[in-house]
Amino acid sequence: MTTRDDCLALDAGDPLADLRQLFALPDGVIYLDGNSLGARPRAAVERAAEVVAAEWGEGLIRSWNSADWRGLPERLGDKLAPLIGARAGEVVITDTTSINLFKVLSAALRIQEEDAPGRKVIVSESSNFPTDLYIAEGLTDMLQRGYRLRLVDDPEQLPAAIDADTAVVMLSHVNYKTGYLHDMREVTRLVHENGALAIWDLAHSAGALPLDLHAADADYAIGCTYKYLNGGPGSPAYVWVAPRLRERVWQPLSGWFGHSRQFAMEPRYQPGEGITRFLCGTQPITSLALVECGLDIFARTDMQRLRDKSLALADLFIELVESRCERFGLTLVTPREHARRGSHVSFEHAQGYAIVQALIDRGVIGDYREPGILRFGFTPLYTRFVEVWDAVQALLEILQSEAWKEPRYQVRHKVT
Amino acid sequence: MTTRDDCLALDAGDPLADLRQLFALPDGVIYLDGNSLGARPRAAVERAAEVVAAEWGEGLIRSWNSADWRGLPERLGDKLAPLIGARAGEVVITDTTSINLFKVLSAALRIQEEDAPGRKVIVSESSNFPTDLYIAEGLTDMLQRGYRLRLVDDPEQLPAAIDADTAVVMLSHVNYKTGYLHDMREVTRLVHENGALAIWDLAHSAGALPLDLHAADADYAIGCTYKYLNGGPGSPAYVWVAPRLRERVWQPLSGWFGHSRQFAMEPRYQPGEGITRFLCGTQPITSLALVECGLDIFARTDMQRLRDKSLALADLFIELVESRCERFGLTLVTPREHARRGSHVSFEHAQGYAIVQALIDRGVIGDYREPGILRFGFTPLYTRFVEVWDAVQALLEILQSEAWKEPRYQVRHKVT
Repeated sequence: MTTRDDCLALDAGDPLADLRQLFALPDGVIYLDGNSLGARPRAAVERAAEVVAAEWGEGLIRSWNSADWRGLPERLGDKLAPLIGARAGEVVITDTTSINLFKVLSAALRIQEEDAPGRKVIVSESSNFPTDLYIAEGLTDMLQRGYRLRLVDDPEQLPAAIDADTAVVMLSHVNYKTGYLHDMREVTRLVHENGALAIWDLAHSAGALPLDLHAADADYAIGCTYKYLNGGPGSPAYVWVAPRLRERVWQPLSGWFGHSRQFAMEPRYQPGEGITRFLCGTQPITSLALVECGLDIFARTDMQRLRDKSLALADLFIELVESRCERFGLTLVTPREHARRGSHVSFEHAQGYAIVQALIDRGVIGDYREPGILRFGFTPLYTRFVEVWDAVQALLEILQSEAWKEPRYQVRHKVT
Repeated sequence: MTTRDDCLALDAGDPLADLRQLFALPDGVIYLDGNSLGARPRAAVERAAEVVAAEWGEGLIRSWNSADWRGLPERLGDKLAPLIGARAGEVVITDTTSINLFKVLSAALRIQEEDAPGRKVIVSESSNFPTDLYIAEGLTDMLQRGYRLRLVDDPEQLPAAIDADTAVVMLSHVNYKTGYLHDMREVTRLVHENGALAIWDLAHSAGALPLDLHAADADYAIGCTYKYLNGGPGSPAYVWVAPRLRERVWQPLSGWFGHSRQFAMEPRYQPGEGITRFLCGTQPITSLALVECGLDIFARTDMQRLRDKSLALADLFIELVESRCERFGLTLVTPREHARRGSHVSFEHAQGYAIVQALIDRGVIGDYREPGILRFGFTPLYTRFVEVWDAVQALLEILQSEAWKEPRYQVRHKVT
């Protein structure tokens, strides 16, 4: 059985161990929530000061050109592209994941409306991240043209749910709750065989595992930069569209940054080239600029090495929880198979909420998701093997002492 | 005739003069572009460091609660509310002006569709800020239900254009190019008499002049925080809806932050109370938090005093340009009447672009708008009377020397 010393030895032999020093992590904290909000790259404080003091304060309006604020969505998109198997010029970082989903879902439905107007079904999962479902609901309600959502409760039901009525299949690559990882290539093949279009939400996979949108022949992808990409709280999201679809696409959030001649100030909209037509309004520059600090760190390694460490950390966590905490009724929710899981691990427990609060109180930060899910993210850029040991030790002590029964851990407050 | 010494005397007697010290302005610059990007409040550097280093870096995911990131859109909305004649709980700061316009225009059309389905016309001005027109174009194209834009070329044509077919009238309170100021109360009365709904874009009026959305009986308002409100580059925008309409409204960008029980993670959307249903996705916290530094400055004065100084600065500028530069073919585009103008002044000149470049090169920062418009913003929080003198002196020297003929000033590059 693995010991704490074994974990220390794993850290000593970890070729990625040095990357941790690029992050500022608070003392006394084991951070297992990088799947919700990534830790702060050390470079971010200096970059924020540069943007606010120099670019805004000194450069003022001139910085739209001199600091290339205008080019940020595309320039940072180019830095993100290799992490998701996209190419330069194919990605922009802009707006929020919800807004970007609205754009690509609108674009996809418009194409189907032209090519196959009878297709009225949007297929997704009932356990998809809720905002994705809400956006699809808002869009179908708005269009009033007979579109409807068809939600499956289990990934196994997808083949039966995708049929000749299906316009779009909209899935999260990694499920936010269970950690289930879809086979993007296989599912996309199934979608295309049935004449539908595939939208992938990469929120829980970009920066956590190797991705290849081109190899998977995906149609659209969106995602956020504030989780595994370490862009900062609420940092702008991204959008990718397959080059073969780009010139065809129209999207309704046609703001001035997506215009082909923005400063001609023409009264009629004329979409810009390629992915730039997915830009809309003026972006929050300070938050957007900080995304670069997170992306730059990925250039020092590669996604396969990160994936290997992520799986090793998660395997260790599963092994230790199941062996050391076996008496306490924790049930693994995440698939064991490597090919079927992302970079977080979820256990179910009737007292999940209180246990997570007790862990946070001891400096072990995971998070809780309804119903009864304890969620732990393993971010190989900065998580140590010994932290996995220490986190499980804290969990064990809480379970043994029944510390979770303390009333302060039972009080529900808003969590993210 | 006014002299430079007179201007120095005006500054010496200016009761608002001390507010300038709350801003960081670069040496050697006369900044007359606060109507495009407001100057940096001194407090913003420290606030940015606090958000990035302490709230993100130390607090990590916990800051959604402990630093109340969740509450920022509403809390900052409450600080903005008095500047636009709204009340606490009626405004949220979120997303971009373009996105917020899409929300309220969708909401307004939905109400009309229920109450008066024959109304298919959206009235606006051909000189409205282009992104507003592009958003309306995208929305009507998306709906495919017969909606169309009816654009007037002159505000005088509005009464004839608003009729029994009109669903919505969508106007910028102050025109971005000419500086023309609509009578919000009178126009809204006309809109309502004709059974339509009124959307006001306050981008060029909020923070520049007293506003009273309730007294004007407006229906919807949107605007940005990065101009006169000094929120920082691309800082998030705001949205206000008249309380009498709020519970009725639906908007299609129904993301998880607008849900009544966000963290219940329910698969169906259930809109939150009042204005919170206009929230959508996760906001860019660093940019959003900095909005507070700008808003806090307004608490030290009141909008009427700012308006008085703004008009005095602009009057001085018009007087000096017209008297000192009269031979050089500059034509005032902005209405002279105080009640008909905002806080910027525009002149037309065939060489407008090159003249603006030559001015910027001499540290006098105004901006250029097609076609041929030299635009100068007067931000009473930090602009001095003597700067108006010095700016006109620089303009005079450029015109006298024909410095604008230099090839480097003729080269067009992107401007904002």
